[in-house]
Amino acid sequence: MIHVGIIGGTGYTGLELLRLLDNHPVAEVVCITSREQSGNTVSDLFPSLEGHYSLEFSSPEVGKLGKCDVVFSAAPNGVAMNYAPQLLDIGVRIVDLSADFRLRDATLWEQWYGMPHACPELLNQAVYGLTEVNRKQLPDAALVANPGCYPTVVQLGFLPLIEGGHVETESLIADVKSGVSGAGRKSELAISYSETSDSMRAYAASGHRHLPEILQGLSQASRETVKMVFTPHLIPMNRGIHATLYAKLNDSSHKASLDELHEIFINRYANEPFVRIMSPKSHPDVRSVRGSNCCRIALHRPQNGAYVTVLAVEDNLVKGAAGQALQNMNVMFGLDETTGLNGLAVVP
Amino acid sequence: MIHVGIIGGTGYTGLELLRLLDNHPVAEVVCITSREQSGNTVSDLFPSLEGHYSLEFSSPEVGKLGKCDVVFSAAPNGVAMNYAPQLLDIGVRIVDLSADFRLRDATLWEQWYGMPHACPELLNQAVYGLTEVNRKQLPDAALVANPGCYPTVVQLGFLPLIEGGHVETESLIADVKSGVSGAGRKSELAISYSETSDSMRAYAASGHRHLPEILQGLSQASRETVKMVFTPHLIPMNRGIHATLYAKLNDSSHKASLDELHEIFINRYANEPFVRIMSPKSHPDVRSVRGSNCCRIALHRPQNGAYVTVLAVEDNLVKGAAGQALQNMNVMFGLDETTGLNGLAVVP
Amino acid sequence: MIHVGIIGGTGYTGLELLRLLDNHPVAEVVCITSREQSGNTVSDLFPSLEGHYSLEFSSPEVGKLGKCDVVFSAAPNGVAMNYAPQLLDIGVRIVDLSADFRLRDATLWEQWYGMPHACPELLNQAVYGLTEVNRKQLPDAALVANPGCYPTVVQLGFLPLIEGGHVETESLIADVKSGVSGAGRKSELAISYSETSDSMRAYAASGHRHLPEILQGLSQASRETVKMVFTPHLIPMNRGIHATLYAKLNDSSHKASLDELHEIFINRYANEPFVRIMSPKSHPDVRSVRGSNCCRIALHRPQNGAYVTVLAVEDNLVKGAAGQALQNMNVMFGLDETTGLNGLAVVP
Amino acid sequence: MIHVGIIGGTGYTGLELLRLLDNHPVAEVVCITSREQSGNTVSDLFPSLEGHYSLEFSSPEVGKLGKCDVVFSAAPNGVAMNYAPQLLDIGVRIVDLSADFRLRDATLWEQWYGMPHACPELLNQAVYGLTEVNRKQLPDAALVANPGCYPTVVQLGFLPLIEGGHVETESLIADVKSGVSGAGRKSELAISYSETSDSMRAYAASGHRHLPEILQGLSQASRETVKMVFTPHLIPMNRGIHATLYAKLNDSSHKASLDELHEIFINRYANEPFVRIMSPKSHPDVRSVRGSNCCRIALHRPQNGAYVTVLAVEDNLVKGAAGQALQNMNVMFGLDETTGLNGLAVVP
Repeated sequence: MIHVGIIGGTGYTGLELLRLLDNHPVAEVVCITSREQSGNTVSDLFPSLEGHYSLEFSSPEVGKLGKCDVVFSAAPNGVAMNYAPQLLDIGVRIVDLSADFRLRDATLWEQWYGMPHACPELLNQAVYGLTEVNRKQLPDAALVANPGCYPTVVQLGFLPLIEGGHVETESLIADVKSGVSGAGRKSELAISYSETSDSMRAYAASGHRHLPEILQGLSQASRETVKMVFTPHLIPMNRGIHATLYAKLNDSSHKASLDELHEIFINRYANEPFVRIMSPKSHPDVRSVRGSNCCRIALHRPQNGAYVTVLAVEDNLVKGAAGQALQNMNVMFGLDETTGLNGLAVVP
Repeated sequence: MIHVGIIGGTGYTGLELLRLLDNHPVAEVVCITSREQSGNTVSDLFPSLEGHYSLEFSSPEVGKLGKCDVVFSAAPNGVAMNYAPQLLDIGVRIVDLSADFRLRDATLWEQWYGMPHACPELLNQAVYGLTEVNRKQLPDAALVANPGCYPTVVQLGFLPLIEGGHVETESLIADVKSGVSGAGRKSELAISYSETSDSMRAYAASGHRHLPEILQGLSQASRETVKMVFTPHLIPMNRGIHATLYAKLNDSSHKASLDELHEIFINRYANEPFVRIMSPKSHPDVRSVRGSNCCRIALHRPQNGAYVTVLAVEDNLVKGAAGQALQNMNVMFGLDETTGLNGLAVVP
Repeated sequence: MIHVGIIGGTGYTGLELLRLLDNHPVAEVVCITSREQSGNTVSDLFPSLEGHYSLEFSSPEVGKLGKCDVVFSAAPNGVAMNYAPQLLDIGVRIVDLSADFRLRDATLWEQWYGMPHACPELLNQAVYGLTEVNRKQLPDAALVANPGCYPTVVQLGFLPLIEGGHVETESLIADVKSGVSGAGRKSELAISYSETSDSMRAYAASGHRHLPEILQGLSQASRETVKMVFTPHLIPMNRGIHATLYAKLNDSSHKASLDELHEIFINRYANEPFVRIMSPKSHPDVRSVRGSNCCRIALHRPQNGAYVTVLAVEDNLVKGAAGQALQNMNVMFGLDETTGLNGLAVVP
Repeated sequence: MIHVGIIGGTGYTGLELLRLLDNHPVAEVVCITSREQSGNTVSDLFPSLEGHYSLEFSSPEVGKLGKCDVVFSAAPNGVAMNYAPQLLDIGVRIVDLSADFRLRDATLWEQWYGMPHACPELLNQAVYGLTEVNRKQLPDAALVANPGCYPTVVQLGFLPLIEGGHVETESLIADVKSGVSGAGRKSELAISYSETSDSMRAYAASGHRHLPEILQGLSQASRETVKMVFTPHLIPMNRGIHATLYAKLNDSSHKASLDELHEIFINRYANEPFVRIMSPKSHPDVRSVRGSNCCRIALHRPQNGAYVTVLAVEDNLVKGAAGQALQNMNVMFGLDETTGLNGLAVVP
């Protein structure tokens, strides 16, 4: 049995970890922390868990967390970096769902996240947990930086094109649409029902924190400089991200047919349990992955022209957060990667 | 392994049966019928099932269905009654999710459903599958009439008060609110997004087909005539029903405190795995049961007056349909009642 | 030209007043106050007003407000009562959209609103602005208490039955459903999109502040004690209230047919420009009044039994707040009651 | 008084024409046709119109329409082209809200719309009614082709950049998101609530009928070949379109600052009553134009790089259809362009 701890379990990511771990045959949550909810049971806060958990929130102390085999940090950015050194010292493995260890460049991190980094020396030892890219490094990883929700789906959508050198890398465009749960569980006028429903808007169109994370990943996959315009939008839906990705085929590939491009994706993800390539010219629904760990991808080549359009969907709380964290845990501990992650999407 | 067949599997109830059965350790779907989709795989129609089912829809013939241990009928009203006699003859057990076998009185059935009944002689042998009431009859049942979505939650909410003789039975009021999936998967202007979203309405306020089913169940539980005003409403949500139930305490019980009434519910459902009684004066969210088989109930006694208000929620496609059907199957085949039904609600 | 001031104009009610007054031919907003937004233009806060208002928020001082012919208070409960005495003294008429002057009984008010009343002596002089009841008192009114959103639609729905003495008044049931804008424009987890969408719940089912207001109005219309169970629900829609009202016909009226009951409503509201009685057995959609000042009502008599069911809808921000406030202003100033209020509902 | 006829008034565009025309001081609807609804009043079909229209639908005959000063065709594609020649012959002016007269090239039209054109000789005489481009031609126009919803907002967003020659015209990208009312008022599974809510998807990503219309407009404004990737998405909202437009600054303009680009938009639309340029780096909400005829636009220049991002919103039923049709009518008949179109957006 893997003993699991969760830091900062009062948000939607924490709730989703609890939902998924309840269904995991060899992992058990033994500790979950929250300063504010300390002493309350998790089902006081999250009634949907009633009858499945008798666990209480405890105040965040390394003591209890230190007895865990692995700790998931679901706290806001800037928290995990304060726990990581101590926990790693005593041999606790960490999967951090915040942004603290996602960027290798501390200066870049501090610039986008607006605070000094507490342990920049750990950045290079952290494994970036996009499972489909870094699976081999996970069994030995002590510290895993779980990717952001947007970076997961945008990278999965672009990677086959970038890795194969098929597209121009300086003119990528990622137009991404997220459900409101991506903004977290908090009191904020801008995400109230009356401000978000029956409407939509772009946000951070001049620059969003997930951009450097995406560029870092795609640059590593490419031999070229990667530049991207990245525009997130807030959509009136609970969960899910729809990425609409545009790339210009380069000289060596502009004669490739849609079927050939499709084949590249099929091959790249042939052995991936959680990436599904749909028929060319398909259109994935966001809801088709609601509650599941899948990423579904379809390709288009409008007017047989210079651009390939990639449509990719994921559940931001599952493949974009808690599900991928468990996928990483499974690999870290030598389990079948899909353990506890086989639940089908809830449709409609 | 229990071999399962599904008749008419192209609706939301069929999809939900497939979702839940995929997670069931000892049941396997071996046959699913649809005249229209015959030859297509279930994941062609329902992409969320991709990778989990390779099953094809077959044309509806008793032949294939006859090899099943149990057949779920998820077809519209009026279909199951045409298959039932033959299937029962060859020893196939049936759980009918339509209304065909819910009423014992054929005349009443024909009046509300507007067609002649094909096998009225089976009505008395059908077990009404409100598990919490008829559990003991299920192990020997050949034909189970799975309750309607509204009747499930309305009966569960009223039963402790009715069975104990605590309320006047001629002035019950059930104001119920349903998500749109309750109307089924079909092309109909009235349930299009543009006609239903950011709005709501009552429907069938002068009389709804589920009323006689509810009255039959509550009358059986009572020693008195039961009358009810039943008003369904269509709410802009996918799944879920919220029942707000009003009953007037009778002379023998009007002095009972809210805590005492609460205790009656606690006791009635003490051993029920899928009914949860919340603290008095609580308010269940519909989403707290999204995708789960639970019914959650809370009591109020406004101004300490003559009425008790019962708030009860369920997922219309799970406890109100496919989940309860599996719950019944589990009991019919001697399995633990919760087998395959332990998935937590997907929140948010 | 009527010079209009608005106190506390940063909520949805304030925004709706601005929207409606922009279309009013003889009223002009000359002053709008907000401590927090002082110095900003109204279109900085509410971009939908851009190009129609150049008005700035000013800090709340009686000085500027004193130059108005009428002041609408759209501030939270407990604010208007602090301005009212001074403004009335200098001859400014007031339409208060908060609850400060709705109850005649100061003790009852203090009990439900949890604070001492600043000017209980004004309670008896305030005219309760349910226009359809107190129209004749408005031309001379200095202080109008604009009704709450729920009380407006519940009273309009019950009044013909109560005034005519047709129903038992001790067993009224009002099951009401509101869009989220009814909770106001504020930062609060419970009304965030992720907590309210694709779900619904009851709230305050044991007692809600609008109950005493409704009982006061209905008691005045009746010769009997009025008791009611009142259950509000939060529905995932922006605007609108759907009231489902249940009343038991009394001995003198239980033989009345549905058509006769319908006739009673037709006659009661024959000259009302903003109340529309639909055909018997109809079902009003909430959206059919979105943005309009209408209340639409339909009657049912299920199974021709003891109860009459009244379905009534309004837009909580228009007939339930800002629209009725303008309707009252029109009557107060001798204008045609519908001036500026003829905009049709925005559907879909 | 302008006598108005409406062909095919049973869809959302017809309803919106009725809503807006009710508020127009010098236009009156005297005839509205529908084969199916002939003899019913418009408020039987659309209850929100009750009390404002006593008009009945009539069967579609040129006779009645022939007495109108102007006829709006709100029927599906392929209908208006069968009425146009006769109506024009007898001097009735036409504003066609369908696609029948939008393309000048009959072959291209037939290719995208899949039917032969009934009167290709009229294509060159039709004025394309993007008011902000062709205002001067409208006073003399007999036949106006009202632009599509997507083409309106996409052209308004790109025009200042294209007309001034600031961007590369072969790599335009338009990622557009529409509310479900854009699909029309019809019985179709794909737009049912249960299939569209709490989800989203792209559609026609390989090619959509509005593309040739957009290219025709932008090519006319440019001196260069225009190519575009155009991806529409279906969003769970009633009304509104959000266009996210990407253009690469060309050699002559890549040094232009965001403020300079902003200035170009300000100047282009300085005298336009219905186009509002927001501050640089703003994000327009779709709801900020709900029910209004405005298009709101904001610019971004991410990372001060090669691309400019244009965010533009409109209400698809107003500026994208019925509102622009009235705007065109106003200009055609020499009225102030904003007559009857000053209603503010309904927010929230």
